[in-house]
Amino acid sequence: MTPPKRGFTNAEFACRCAKIQQAMITNDIAALLLTTEADVRYFTGFMTQFWQSPTRPWFVLLPAIGKPIAIIPSIGAPLMRDCYIGNLQTWTSPAATDDGISLLASLILDQVGLSGRLGMMMGSETTIRMPFADIQALQTLMDGITLCDMTADVQKIRMIKSPAEQIKLKHICSIVSSVFADLPQWVVAGMPLNELFQNFKIKALEAGVDDVSYLVGSAGPDGYTDIIAPPTSRPIASGDVFMLDTGCIWDGYFSDFDRNFAMHYASDTAKEAHHRLFDATDAALNILKPGITAADLFFAMDQVLRPNGSIQIKGGEVGRYGHGLGTQLTEPPSHTNWDQTVLEAGMALTLEPSINYGDGLMMVAEENLLILDNGAMLLSTRAQRDLPIVSAC
Amino acid sequence: MTPPKRGFTNAEFACRCAKIQQAMITNDIAALLLTTEADVRYFTGFMTQFWQSPTRPWFVLLPAIGKPIAIIPSIGAPLMRDCYIGNLQTWTSPAATDDGISLLASLILDQVGLSGRLGMMMGSETTIRMPFADIQALQTLMDGITLCDMTADVQKIRMIKSPAEQIKLKHICSIVSSVFADLPQWVVAGMPLNELFQNFKIKALEAGVDDVSYLVGSAGPDGYTDIIAPPTSRPIASGDVFMLDTGCIWDGYFSDFDRNFAMHYASDTAKEAHHRLFDATDAALNILKPGITAADLFFAMDQVLRPNGSIQIKGGEVGRYGHGLGTQLTEPPSHTNWDQTVLEAGMALTLEPSINYGDGLMMVAEENLLILDNGAMLLSTRAQRDLPIVSAC
Repeated sequence: MTPPKRGFTNAEFACRCAKIQQAMITNDIAALLLTTEADVRYFTGFMTQFWQSPTRPWFVLLPAIGKPIAIIPSIGAPLMRDCYIGNLQTWTSPAATDDGISLLASLILDQVGLSGRLGMMMGSETTIRMPFADIQALQTLMDGITLCDMTADVQKIRMIKSPAEQIKLKHICSIVSSVFADLPQWVVAGMPLNELFQNFKIKALEAGVDDVSYLVGSAGPDGYTDIIAPPTSRPIASGDVFMLDTGCIWDGYFSDFDRNFAMHYASDTAKEAHHRLFDATDAALNILKPGITAADLFFAMDQVLRPNGSIQIKGGEVGRYGHGLGTQLTEPPSHTNWDQTVLEAGMALTLEPSINYGDGLMMVAEENLLILDNGAMLLSTRAQRDLPIVSAC
Repeated sequence: MTPPKRGFTNAEFACRCAKIQQAMITNDIAALLLTTEADVRYFTGFMTQFWQSPTRPWFVLLPAIGKPIAIIPSIGAPLMRDCYIGNLQTWTSPAATDDGISLLASLILDQVGLSGRLGMMMGSETTIRMPFADIQALQTLMDGITLCDMTADVQKIRMIKSPAEQIKLKHICSIVSSVFADLPQWVVAGMPLNELFQNFKIKALEAGVDDVSYLVGSAGPDGYTDIIAPPTSRPIASGDVFMLDTGCIWDGYFSDFDRNFAMHYASDTAKEAHHRLFDATDAALNILKPGITAADLFFAMDQVLRPNGSIQIKGGEVGRYGHGLGTQLTEPPSHTNWDQTVLEAGMALTLEPSINYGDGLMMVAEENLLILDNGAMLLSTRAQRDLPIVSAC
């Protein structure tokens, strides 16, 4: 399939900045400090795998008016110059002491003044990506400044995907759907699980994903007990139920869904578990539209998953039945009984019901979708209701 | 090649814990709080790509005596149970409020008491992976406890790789060397850089790496200007100098080295830059043995790179000439003029001299090596002195 255009227009970044700047002006916040890959990329377009190196801190300061100010190690200057920024300040990093902190503090004081309000990311699903000692040093240097948590404001904006973001999400989910669709043609009994994983990664790259950033899963007789482990070298055997859950990336945007399979045959209990997960997903899809909450999705799925039936329900291990999707493998909201986030058109979500059955086994099924003005559309090609059985040759 | 055994023995984790516990006892520190993927894995063996999800915090508390205590979301329990831990405490995460904080605080108070000393990671190259608001809440809950930075102690231990770690590093570097060696056979003029990258990833997976976690690079007429950008779709042209820098992973251990190539031909200046980088690497290799410092490596390379010659030196952009290597793409020490870390047998390092030449062009060359009792051994198959020229078919 022909890939869409990479990157974003400057107008897109201007729009993103304008939205958070509106919240900043409303709350009398003079500047917003960003330190993480996802937030820096969202507001400036700075995209690099170099964030994997923990050595250097990276800062972006977004003033209430104007373009972002990048305060970064000089190694990033060539790339950052082409991003959506109004000012670029660099220092040679790593530094023995003061690794960008006094430079950052002086720019914050320029923007915020001695006793103004600085926005920071302090809430759920965030971290401040700099050494704790540097946070303390920074706090001392900007002693009179009030730190204000802007997590909710930033998350609210990032949750709504623009048309250009939606196209990227559709593209990556479409590629991964095709890779999963082909899997029964090439997986065979006796293939070690880690070899299956390597094959999957190669086929996903061949199909056009940029990276297979995340691939976890399990296999075991009639089911699995873990959903985040790396693969073992145990060969897949007849009667195994196995699951691959992958987060693949295209132009910085993630798919995140899984598929379950049985090798040659499966018990009625495993088949029923798969039906139940499908029906739970159906229950969520049936109510999906703007105006309902993430908690509504939880309750719709939970009602299907937890009646007293033939399947033993323990619940609680995964902690939720899905989440937001975008530039991170998982983003807000969380489909839990407490998340009152109101769904809006443009949100990309996963539905990820999970169920416990048999003797400590579990099964999880996941789909990706986009909220539309009047409902929702699947981004992943939906799994069938019956647990797919890989046939003997 | 036959891969080595995956994982580590319990004795290895016991040894790692005993080393840091010795430093804790010396400094009267009752427990050490760990929150990041690298530190948690190092002391417990907990390995999962699930860290990519920013939703949930994960905590390990290492008492001064005894095995680590894991305080984690219940989704991680099946995997953590098989790790090197003495106690597993879970909660259902994500939580609306109190996402593990009161549980963590109570366990810290159990171990440290109301007025004891708690070790934390606060220094260079570290972050505390939890929301800032949760750090503040935790500080309130453990008000009388003194926080002590243990970054230097943990880094000192992690820098020395055990025999089992060394085998993994050798293995991954050996695989990646073979992939680079084959590259001139399949790269052709006209191949877009991003297609070259995809092919490289596929070939690395086929050769046996677990993941191509990091692959950056650039191409341009006679050289490149950036070393951390994602690839463009520009076709590689005759006269381009191009570079691929990759961090590949096997069983959680990274290679990190690059290779430069010219398509069909290169200028004398580019060839001279490559010679200079090779000679700088030679200068470092010639002095490499236990007892010298990371700064000694910097000065040995810098002396070759910065004489006033035909090559215009600007310097400073990368910020160092190499670093440590292990479970992270980059680890301490840093080959800078200020890093006085004394090299010891068992350290895995990169040598990464960089040079500026021509009109804003730069070149970087990188090798991986291991410090031995009486010198050093290369882990990467060394690049040749002459810039490799890919021939026209």
